[in-house]
Amino acid sequence: MEEIVIEVIKNELENALINKDALKLNNIFEKYPTIDIAQVVNMGNYDITKLVYIFKVCESSYSADLFKELNNDIQKQLIDSFADKDIVELLSHTFADDLTDYLQEMPANVVSRILQIAPKELRENINRLLNYKENTAGSIMTTEYLLFNQDISLKEAIKTIQEKGKDAVTIYTIFIRDDQRNLVGTIDLDDLIFNKEDCKLKDIMNLDFQTADVNQDQEEVANIFKRYDLNAIAVLNNDKKICGVITSDDIMDVISKEAAEDITNISNVSSMSKSYLETPIMKLVLKCLPWIVALMILQIFSSMILSSFQSEINKFAILSVFSPMILDAAGNSGGQTTGLMIRSLSLDEIHKGDWKKVFFKEFRVGLILALIVGVFGFLWCLFELSVGIVSCHIKDYPAITVNDDLTLHLLVSLLVSLSLFVSILLAKIFGVFLCFIASKLKRDPAVMAQPLVTTLTDVVSLLTYFAIWVFLFEHFLGI
Amino acid sequence: MEEIVIEVIKNELENALINKDALKLNNIFEKYPTIDIAQVVNMGNYDITKLVYIFKVCESSYSADLFKELNNDIQKQLIDSFADKDIVELLSHTFADDLTDYLQEMPANVVSRILQIAPKELRENINRLLNYKENTAGSIMTTEYLLFNQDISLKEAIKTIQEKGKDAVTIYTIFIRDDQRNLVGTIDLDDLIFNKEDCKLKDIMNLDFQTADVNQDQEEVANIFKRYDLNAIAVLNNDKKICGVITSDDIMDVISKEAAEDITNISNVSSMSKSYLETPIMKLVLKCLPWIVALMILQIFSSMILSSFQSEINKFAILSVFSPMILDAAGNSGGQTTGLMIRSLSLDEIHKGDWKKVFFKEFRVGLILALIVGVFGFLWCLFELSVGIVSCHIKDYPAITVNDDLTLHLLVSLLVSLSLFVSILLAKIFGVFLCFIASKLKRDPAVMAQPLVTTLTDVVSLLTYFAIWVFLFEHFLGI
Repeated sequence: MEEIVIEVIKNELENALINKDALKLNNIFEKYPTIDIAQVVNMGNYDITKLVYIFKVCESSYSADLFKELNNDIQKQLIDSFADKDIVELLSHTFADDLTDYLQEMPANVVSRILQIAPKELRENINRLLNYKENTAGSIMTTEYLLFNQDISLKEAIKTIQEKGKDAVTIYTIFIRDDQRNLVGTIDLDDLIFNKEDCKLKDIMNLDFQTADVNQDQEEVANIFKRYDLNAIAVLNNDKKICGVITSDDIMDVISKEAAEDITNISNVSSMSKSYLETPIMKLVLKCLPWIVALMILQIFSSMILSSFQSEINKFAILSVFSPMILDAAGNSGGQTTGLMIRSLSLDEIHKGDWKKVFFKEFRVGLILALIVGVFGFLWCLFELSVGIVSCHIKDYPAITVNDDLTLHLLVSLLVSLSLFVSILLAKIFGVFLCFIASKLKRDPAVMAQPLVTTLTDVVSLLTYFAIWVFLFEHFLGI
Repeated sequence: MEEIVIEVIKNELENALINKDALKLNNIFEKYPTIDIAQVVNMGNYDITKLVYIFKVCESSYSADLFKELNNDIQKQLIDSFADKDIVELLSHTFADDLTDYLQEMPANVVSRILQIAPKELRENINRLLNYKENTAGSIMTTEYLLFNQDISLKEAIKTIQEKGKDAVTIYTIFIRDDQRNLVGTIDLDDLIFNKEDCKLKDIMNLDFQTADVNQDQEEVANIFKRYDLNAIAVLNNDKKICGVITSDDIMDVISKEAAEDITNISNVSSMSKSYLETPIMKLVLKCLPWIVALMILQIFSSMILSSFQSEINKFAILSVFSPMILDAAGNSGGQTTGLMIRSLSLDEIHKGDWKKVFFKEFRVGLILALIVGVFGFLWCLFELSVGIVSCHIKDYPAITVNDDLTLHLLVSLLVSLSLFVSILLAKIFGVFLCFIASKLKRDPAVMAQPLVTTLTDVVSLLTYFAIWVFLFEHFLGI
C-alpha cells in the first residue's frame, strides 16, 4: 500500500514541477505525509534547481519538514544553492536538535555558514548540542521545552503554551521549577485538561518523576523511558538544572538503532551511524575487516592444536571429517547462550543479582541439550558411516585391532558423541561466563561475548575431540 | 541508582508489611514508581498472604497497577486467594488489553473464573481481544479510546473527556467519525489546547491520518508509527470501522521485542514470548535443540566433501590444519552481510527497488575485503609455518617435488590465500542472495538467511580449498 502512495506522489510531484505549479506543490504537502514525499525526492535523482523551486514556493513549515528528511547529499547541495535569507527562513522552522543532527553530517564550510546566519539563541543551542558526545542523552535532547514556575496558575500556563504555538515546543510533558530553577515536578499534557484552571501548578504536578543525566548513555535513557512509560524526560546538566528534554519519538529511534547495533555487533560488524546504502564502500570494508582479521588471528590456538595432532590425523584421516560438525554444533550452542543473554539484557530482564540463577539454569539446559545432541550425534554419525556417505573401513587402517567395519563405526560414533556432549556443555557455560564478564566490565556482550564464544569453543572442542580420541583409540586400540 | 531505590523500597515495604501499616503501604505507592515496587515483590519470595494484605488495604488504582507488573506465577496465586468482589475491584481498574495479556498466561480455570466475574462489556472486549492472533495489531490494541462525531464542538468533546476521567481512556489522540461510524479524522491532544473551544471537531481534525488493519503484523504497525512519528494509531476491522487503538508505549514494547527476537533468531534460537528467567528449562531446550540438530544434518554436505578428500588429507595432513580458519573467515564474512541486511531491513532502509544496488555494493565490498584478507592470510599463514606454530616439513612428505621448506610454506600459504579470497567473495554474494530470497518469500531473514549462510559457505569453502589444492599441488607437484 505504501508503494502505491509513493507512486501517486511521484506522478503528482513531477507534474507540478514540470508545470511549475506552486499551488499544486503546496497541495501535495497538504495531502500526503512529508516523509513519503521525502522518499520520492530521495529516490528520484531530481535536478537540484527543481528542488530549489519547491523550497521557493512552498510554505516554509512544509519545506522545513521536507528538508529534515532528505539525504545528506541533497541537503548539502540545497544549502549550497540557497541564499542566506532562505536559510534563515528554513532555520526558523527547525528544532535545534534536528538541525544539530544534520550539521554533524555536513562539511565544515557548510556548518560555519549556517552558524553565521543563525540567530544568536539558536546558534548557542546548536553549539551546546554539538558538544555532546554521540549516543549520550545530550546528543538527542531538544532544547525547546516549557519550564514553568511552580507558583503560577494552570490558566496562566495554558495561556503561555497557546502563545508559544503548536510547533514551537515539546508540550506532551511540561516541566516545573522552583525559584532557584531546580526541577521540582512534571505535568503531563492530559493533566492540563483534567484539572481546574484556577489551581496552581504545584498542586497538580507529579513529584515522583524520572530524570536523565546529560552525559548518560542513550540506551540507559531508553530503558528508563520504557520502564516508566514516559512521554518525555528532563535532561539535567552537571549542576542538576534542566538543560533539555527527550521525547518519545526520539526514544523510539534510539530503541530501533540500539537494537540494530546489537544485530550488527552479533554479526561481527562495527557500529554504523549511517544507513547501509549511504555508507561508502570503503567504510563498509573497514566495519567488517578488523573482525575478520582479529578472529583469524585468534584462530592461532586452533591451528596450534590441529598442528600438534597432525600425526594423529595422518594415521586416522576420518578424524578431520567430523571435526567441523562438532565445532559448529558447539559454536552454535555457545552462540545461542550469548544470544539469549544479549536479548535478556536488552529487554532489561536480567538484573545484578540474577547471574547465579542464570548460570545454574544454563548449566541444566546445557546438560539436557548436550545429552540429546550427544545421542543424536551418535546415531547420525553411525548412519553416515554405515550408509557410506562418509567412508571409513578397517582395510584403510591396517594398524587397528578392530575386526570389522561395524565395530569401527560404533567407536567413531562414540568418539563424536562424547565430544559433542562435552563441548556443547562447555560452550553453554563459557557463553554465560563471557556475558557475565562483559556486563561486569560494563561492556556490550554483543561486541565482546559473541565473537569470543565461537573462538573459545573451537579451541575447547578440538582439545576435547583429540583428547577423547587419544584415550579411546590410542589407549585401547593401539593405533 | 536504580538499585539503591529498589533497596530502599524493599526495606520500607518489609517494615510496612511486618507492622501491618496500611497507611505506610499506600504511602510507598505514592512515593515510588509502581514498576520498582513490582520488582521488589517479584524478586522477594514473599508469602502470598502478605501480598494479599497489600491488595486489601491499598487504593485499588495502586494495586491494579501493581498486579499488572507481577510475575505470572504470583498473579495466579493472588487470583486463587482473592474473593470474587476483590477481583471485580481489580478488573474495574484494568484496561482490557492488559487483562488480556495476563489471561493468556493463566490456566484455563483462572480464565473462566475471571470471565464469569467480569462485567458484560469488559467480558466482550476481552473475548474479542483473546481471539486475535499473537503479534497482530489486534493482539496489542486497547479497546478504551475516544471516538467523537465530527459535528460536535471542541467544548463538548473536552467536557466528555473530563467526565470519562484520566485513567479511563487513551487520550493522546482522539478519533473522529462521521454519521456512518467511519473514521474520518484524528485530533492530537495538543490541538485541543491550541484551538478555540467553539470550533467544530471537523474543522480542526487531521484528515491525513494513518490506520492499521486488525490482522496486520505488529512489526509493520511499529514501522508506520516510527515513520510518521505518531502518538496513537486507529485499528480498523474488516469492515473498515475503528475497533481499537494502539498507543506509543505499546509500540515501544513491540520495537524492543521484535529487535530482541531478531537477536535470538540470528543466534539460532526460536522466538520466545516469556522472559528468560520465566521460561522453563525444557522450553529453553526446545528453543535451541531443533536448530542445533537441523544444522548438524545440513553438515552432511561438508562431511561428504571431507570424506571424499580423505585420501588427500591422508597424503597431506597440513590441509586439515588450515581448513577451520578458512571456514570461519568465510562464515563470518557471510554472517556480516546477512547481519547488515537484517539491520537495514529492520530499520526500513532497504526498499523493494534497492536489491540490485545492494548486490552490486556488497560484491564490491566483498572483492576488496577478499583481496585484503587474502593477502593477510598469505602472510599470517607464512608466519605460522615459518615460526613453527604449525609444523610442515618436506621430510614428512617424501613424494613432494619441492626442494626446501620455504618453498613448501609459500605454496601452502598461497593455497590458503587463494581459498580465502574465493570463499569470502562467494560468502558475501550468498549472504545478500539469501536475504533477497527471504524477503521475496516474505520470510524473516534473521530466521532463514543467517543459519543457512554458514552452512552454505562451509560447503563452498571446502570445495574451493580442495579444488585449489588438487590444481596447485597434485597438478604441479605430483603429490
